[in-house]
Amino acid sequence: AGDAAAGKGKAAICAACHGADGQAVIPGYPNLKGQNELYLVNALKAYKNKERTGGNAMLMQPQAAMLSDTDIENLAAYFSQMQ
Amino acid sequence: AGDAAAGKGKAAICAACHGADGQAVIPGYPNLKGQNELYLVNALKAYKNKERTGGNAMLMQPQAAMLSDTDIENLAAYFSQMQ
Repeated sequence: AGDAAAGKGKAAICAACHGADGQAVIPGYPNLKGQNELYLVNALKAYKNKERTGGNAMLMQPQAAMLSDTDIENLAAYFSQMQ
Repeated sequence: AGDAAAGKGKAAICAACHGADGQAVIPGYPNLKGQNELYLVNALKAYKNKERTGGNAMLMQPQAAMLSDTDIENLAAYFSQMQ
């Protein structure tokens, strides 16, 4: 499982769109707070692998491409554990 | 915007995996409760259009294929308004 504290250190760029509290302020952007951890891992990997297109996927593909698999696990831990 | 009451009538099949209360009970499945409405519309349309692959997308593509655009709007209203 990921390291939530390490994830927090990588999450500043996420907060720009998904909210510092994990509640997105922009219509069309998902809330991440308390989301299922494995789902977040799978979603980020799907963006990284360009398996998600359509919608706003073109925004997320380059973000996810900058993340290592460890970064992805840590970010998923951070957002899934957010109260 | 969608009709949440109509969405509820279509949501029984969703509940099997995403929970009757919108909190998924299966690891790797996303919670839908309170999720951003437009995000849910875009995600369902992306599955319907086979723009989402990878992860569990193969499970969602056939589900979304059975939904009309109106169904999708109604379901998004229902889950986004869920407390």
